[in-house]
Amino acid sequence: MKGYILKDMTWPEIEEALKTAKVAVVPIGAQEQHGRHLAEGCDSYRAEAFCALLAEKSYPHVVVAPTVNYGISPHHMDFPGTISLRPETLMAILEDVVSSLKQHGMKKFLFVNGHGANSSAIAVASEKLAREYDVEVAHTKFVDAAKGVIQEHIHSEHFGHACEREISESLYMAPHIVRKDLVEKSDMNTDTFAYKYMNNDFVKVVHQFKDTTHNGNLGDGRQGSFELGEKIIQTALDNLSTFIEDFAR
Amino acid sequence: MKGYILKDMTWPEIEEALKTAKVAVVPIGAQEQHGRHLAEGCDSYRAEAFCALLAEKSYPHVVVAPTVNYGISPHHMDFPGTISLRPETLMAILEDVVSSLKQHGMKKFLFVNGHGANSSAIAVASEKLAREYDVEVAHTKFVDAAKGVIQEHIHSEHFGHACEREISESLYMAPHIVRKDLVEKSDMNTDTFAYKYMNNDFVKVVHQFKDTTHNGNLGDGRQGSFELGEKIIQTALDNLSTFIEDFAR
Amino acid sequence: MKGYILKDMTWPEIEEALKTAKVAVVPIGAQEQHGRHLAEGCDSYRAEAFCALLAEKSYPHVVVAPTVNYGISPHHMDFPGTISLRPETLMAILEDVVSSLKQHGMKKFLFVNGHGANSSAIAVASEKLAREYDVEVAHTKFVDAAKGVIQEHIHSEHFGHACEREISESLYMAPHIVRKDLVEKSDMNTDTFAYKYMNNDFVKVVHQFKDTTHNGNLGDGRQGSFELGEKIIQTALDNLSTFIEDFAR
Amino acid sequence: MKGYILKDMTWPEIEEALKTAKVAVVPIGAQEQHGRHLAEGCDSYRAEAFCALLAEKSYPHVVVAPTVNYGISPHHMDFPGTISLRPETLMAILEDVVSSLKQHGMKKFLFVNGHGANSSAIAVASEKLAREYDVEVAHTKFVDAAKGVIQEHIHSEHFGHACEREISESLYMAPHIVRKDLVEKSDMNTDTFAYKYMNNDFVKVVHQFKDTTHNGNLGDGRQGSFELGEKIIQTALDNLSTFIEDFAR
Amino acid sequence: MKGYILKDMTWPEIEEALKTAKVAVVPIGAQEQHGRHLAEGCDSYRAEAFCALLAEKSYPHVVVAPTVNYGISPHHMDFPGTISLRPETLMAILEDVVSSLKQHGMKKFLFVNGHGANSSAIAVASEKLAREYDVEVAHTKFVDAAKGVIQEHIHSEHFGHACEREISESLYMAPHIVRKDLVEKSDMNTDTFAYKYMNNDFVKVVHQFKDTTHNGNLGDGRQGSFELGEKIIQTALDNLSTFIEDFAR
Amino acid sequence: MKGYILKDMTWPEIEEALKTAKVAVVPIGAQEQHGRHLAEGCDSYRAEAFCALLAEKSYPHVVVAPTVNYGISPHHMDFPGTISLRPETLMAILEDVVSSLKQHGMKKFLFVNGHGANSSAIAVASEKLAREYDVEVAHTKFVDAAKGVIQEHIHSEHFGHACEREISESLYMAPHIVRKDLVEKSDMNTDTFAYKYMNNDFVKVVHQFKDTTHNGNLGDGRQGSFELGEKIIQTALDNLSTFIEDFAR
Repeated sequence: MKGYILKDMTWPEIEEALKTAKVAVVPIGAQEQHGRHLAEGCDSYRAEAFCALLAEKSYPHVVVAPTVNYGISPHHMDFPGTISLRPETLMAILEDVVSSLKQHGMKKFLFVNGHGANSSAIAVASEKLAREYDVEVAHTKFVDAAKGVIQEHIHSEHFGHACEREISESLYMAPHIVRKDLVEKSDMNTDTFAYKYMNNDFVKVVHQFKDTTHNGNLGDGRQGSFELGEKIIQTALDNLSTFIEDFAR
Repeated sequence: MKGYILKDMTWPEIEEALKTAKVAVVPIGAQEQHGRHLAEGCDSYRAEAFCALLAEKSYPHVVVAPTVNYGISPHHMDFPGTISLRPETLMAILEDVVSSLKQHGMKKFLFVNGHGANSSAIAVASEKLAREYDVEVAHTKFVDAAKGVIQEHIHSEHFGHACEREISESLYMAPHIVRKDLVEKSDMNTDTFAYKYMNNDFVKVVHQFKDTTHNGNLGDGRQGSFELGEKIIQTALDNLSTFIEDFAR
Repeated sequence: MKGYILKDMTWPEIEEALKTAKVAVVPIGAQEQHGRHLAEGCDSYRAEAFCALLAEKSYPHVVVAPTVNYGISPHHMDFPGTISLRPETLMAILEDVVSSLKQHGMKKFLFVNGHGANSSAIAVASEKLAREYDVEVAHTKFVDAAKGVIQEHIHSEHFGHACEREISESLYMAPHIVRKDLVEKSDMNTDTFAYKYMNNDFVKVVHQFKDTTHNGNLGDGRQGSFELGEKIIQTALDNLSTFIEDFAR
Repeated sequence: MKGYILKDMTWPEIEEALKTAKVAVVPIGAQEQHGRHLAEGCDSYRAEAFCALLAEKSYPHVVVAPTVNYGISPHHMDFPGTISLRPETLMAILEDVVSSLKQHGMKKFLFVNGHGANSSAIAVASEKLAREYDVEVAHTKFVDAAKGVIQEHIHSEHFGHACEREISESLYMAPHIVRKDLVEKSDMNTDTFAYKYMNNDFVKVVHQFKDTTHNGNLGDGRQGSFELGEKIIQTALDNLSTFIEDFAR
Repeated sequence: MKGYILKDMTWPEIEEALKTAKVAVVPIGAQEQHGRHLAEGCDSYRAEAFCALLAEKSYPHVVVAPTVNYGISPHHMDFPGTISLRPETLMAILEDVVSSLKQHGMKKFLFVNGHGANSSAIAVASEKLAREYDVEVAHTKFVDAAKGVIQEHIHSEHFGHACEREISESLYMAPHIVRKDLVEKSDMNTDTFAYKYMNNDFVKVVHQFKDTTHNGNLGDGRQGSFELGEKIIQTALDNLSTFIEDFAR
Repeated sequence: MKGYILKDMTWPEIEEALKTAKVAVVPIGAQEQHGRHLAEGCDSYRAEAFCALLAEKSYPHVVVAPTVNYGISPHHMDFPGTISLRPETLMAILEDVVSSLKQHGMKKFLFVNGHGANSSAIAVASEKLAREYDVEVAHTKFVDAAKGVIQEHIHSEHFGHACEREISESLYMAPHIVRKDLVEKSDMNTDTFAYKYMNNDFVKVVHQFKDTTHNGNLGDGRQGSFELGEKIIQTALDNLSTFIEDFAR
């Protein structure tokens, strides 16, 4: 692969890369339960792999910072192994990344988020950092860049976590985290107040994930496939690399 | 009006109200430019008035805390008079309100937001406060509870700030803040990168409002009316009071 | 009224006002029990109304920021409905107001406090903000500007909260918050250590208000009147507008 | 001297003392210019010496914590040698002292302040610590306990810093910090806005000390004497030890 | 490999592992220049790989948390690509990891540090977290567990960063980050004050790395080898797994 | 003594001193149990006295700031009288000292630490302050500057706290804090995990001091003497004053 991955480069190599790279991409994941069929690093693995592909596709305009391996996951704490950052912690990490890379001349940042529950904190941080450090900041939950594909192929009522979408992406980008023999449908907890409002479009109710599902996953993982993962990821790559060309200008 | 507004009640009156009121509603506004045709307190006035109506409709299950008259508005700072809280400040206010009312026995909170740019910080605060204080927290940008009406009646490409929607709501709930003789269409700044991505559905770009509009408003205020305001507000009241009955249980 | 109230003005109106207005006035209140005869928003209502009068009297040299509807009231938490900010929160709000208005060219600030227990935090914030933001900051508990009138007309041993002074001011500026049929004398809790030291002039003892009074008010509200309120407020207005003319220069 | 000074005691001695000592006294000073005739540690020396006398007089009911040698002095920063804590720092120190001594069983605290500009931060800290740590907290600017003596003997229009009062106290408690051959009258800067409002009783204006005095001291140090110092200190000791007997109960 | 790596496990697998695993190991790295011959993720790669080996050796008593890919590197900021966390940020991450894993029943933590400049912050965090969360915390800069081997085989005057030791470890655990054709000796900046005191044993002087070396590395990388790496790592594994058996008890 | 001690100087004296003084020295102590034979202010007394000697020896190149009388001592909290700062508090104090003295023109700082457990926080603060305030910062645990003497004369297996070394230093610099008739050997708690790892050279285990010693002291105080104290202190003075001459240049 030819993309610029800062973790894998020496300082003279980075010095050279910074002559053409205009956008720093920061992959942000999570350590969080993903049902019985996906390893807990799922969001980190997907964000990291996606950014590597993006770096390749947008070469030589992008550098990728090291992956933030933790995210905001208090709603999953009832399942063993989940580790949750406070929002302040995640915002502090992003601030330090921006502050440091700005010292090396970088002025444009794209936070690439692999975990939905990170979004609000990333949005708050982006607004703050862009102004405090006088840089341009954009952020994306990267699968949002493949909404058309997703709407066409996924038909579960509730999906978006440890579902056919995430299994497909994982099969395409990080197959070792899929427990293929254990892939299953979600076992929703439909009697709860949390369940009733989990997808409400005008009011958000703070809840624990165990109040909406017993096994920790949404959707129907059995509908996932390498091919669907490929479609999602390639579409998202197309859209985000197009954005980057525009942003890098 | 018969709703419970804490600012207007004595402690024995509140003591009595707390016997039936199960949900504390917190109106959150902003001090922020709203074009040439709306006063800058628009979001505060609308949030406060809406909560008063909600208190009446959901009587006696709701108490309303004093209005937070400031919000998060860094993107409007180029227009005179805008005052912006840091996200941390707004989160601290909400924490203190929750912490205090919990001491009086309140266990359920609904943050009623009148200003879109507050949403991420309110979401972050809600997740934190629900768990730290062991209370139930929900939050709404209250006009989201009238999405159907809005989609039916508003046809501007860009709207949501100082537009026909906000003018309609203001005519219905706070007419003194509308400069009726100055109501105008937005004068968009269409040549900018900010404009191009302002409504993008997969990537959010931090920007200043003056980079997308010259006069500070979106949409076409001339399409606003008392009648549209009434429809929006009554629909939102119906939906949110229904939610509250469920939440208060 | 002709005073400049930022919440009620559009950005072009504010742009015009800032050509002559040199002092930004920030009303700071509280949500706090005020006995059986005054609504809990008493300090917010009085501070807001006083600042509006001051804006009128000092026109066109003053703009008024939106009211801070919450204050520091931990000593009243034993009475239902009281909401208390941490001092850090109030200081953060004031910082954000100063920081924002300075960006619009404002260089002089007067914090107008309606609630005694806010004073220490406001003093700490004033010292900090004046230096950090290179602006001039003054602060007043506004009734202190009518000390002469108060000493002449009020003779209760303990007063200053939900007493004849606050009732008089409320009758003059916000009569709807007075429960006229319930106005009463304080019912002091004279057996306590807190009572013994509540007015001590060399040592301050942290205490709860319920340890000094059973009904939550001091003094004798029955001695309050519209006329006394008018005298207090007009005297304070005279003194503070004179100060402002000096400060604005 | 027989008072309990924690800095000078071993742990078994302290263990014994804690059987009778009910109040922890914390001396708080400053490092701040005091004109040409007093060393900059004046407030620390006086607070420390006064607390030692108080410990002796209130023996065996009091223990004295180590002196906080720094205070809040931004208004003196124009004079060489002044060191100023942020208010947050002083509050953090007091919190750590209270938190630590509470673990040893101490439940009552008296902050003994030697420097006026510390008062607001100490007040804010006291309110917070009393409630957060469930302890009783009182605070005093110790010379306030000798107001009668001071009013009787001191006649300068402006005094309270590096004046006859502080010189008298220093001659009595810490004579080595007085430059006896350099004692002088204040050289006030009477043309300034700061000077005009320095003693105002209804509005406080943040200012720098150099804007009110050229040599850094108030009053007329030449009127100070060992005898006056003795009167002030002995009166303050009488009043505060009486308070302590009451508080310790 | 059979070690428990939380990132690679599902929640039911972790649930099972937590029945025997008593110590949570947290690998902490850095993104920091390592001369012309090592990639900047060197400390992260080494810490992560070492912890995986430790998990295998101490199986089934250890679980490994996701790697912290950033460290404290302000002294390397003059070299492109270095990203530095503030100490507060690193401490916050460690707090969140401890707080989260404690909720899953983990009571013993070992921070495994791959980067010397993280040590002070990790020490401060360890002391705090052990007491605040009532858990047992130990920390190690893991190569310290092979001091004997290092003293025997490394003879450069200055080493410890991008030197023969780190190259050896990398050749053994992460060979892809070594630029074998570029391995070189350090080019020390011997004329500086920083150089003179860089190894002083009684005073530490804050300095920038470029003030002590021109190419960014210490020692003589050409003396490094896979065999030396193996000796260092296997010795450190022996010592730390012995410690863990004792700690886990 | 002729050294510059800021606490004991007036502002004109300091103004004069700052013409030659290039290094500000900050003594940092602790309030912490030191066994049955040393008063708890031991580290503060030693740090303060040592800095006074250093100021004399390095005259006129050094000024000494007031002593920080508290340190970080959570591991001693089981013994009565110990008061512990949070690391954040100590770092804030040091920041305020640096920030203030920089305003008076000081650009070089030496933190002189009398208490080992302060070292990590001082190191973290030093790195931060040097860069944030663009000043030069060095720090020393001052007895480290006499390592040769100590290795030659002290033979206890465990020492460094309330031991023959600290008793010797105290006899030389602050004899009133030594309880000469109570000087004793440590009574180690040898059965604990904490004891086993207290001097380990590759892993640090957070522990309480009572888990390693019953009486609170290490070593054998009976081996201490004025003469040994003199040797340690004079050697440390020689080394540190030599450093200062170099640093001040």
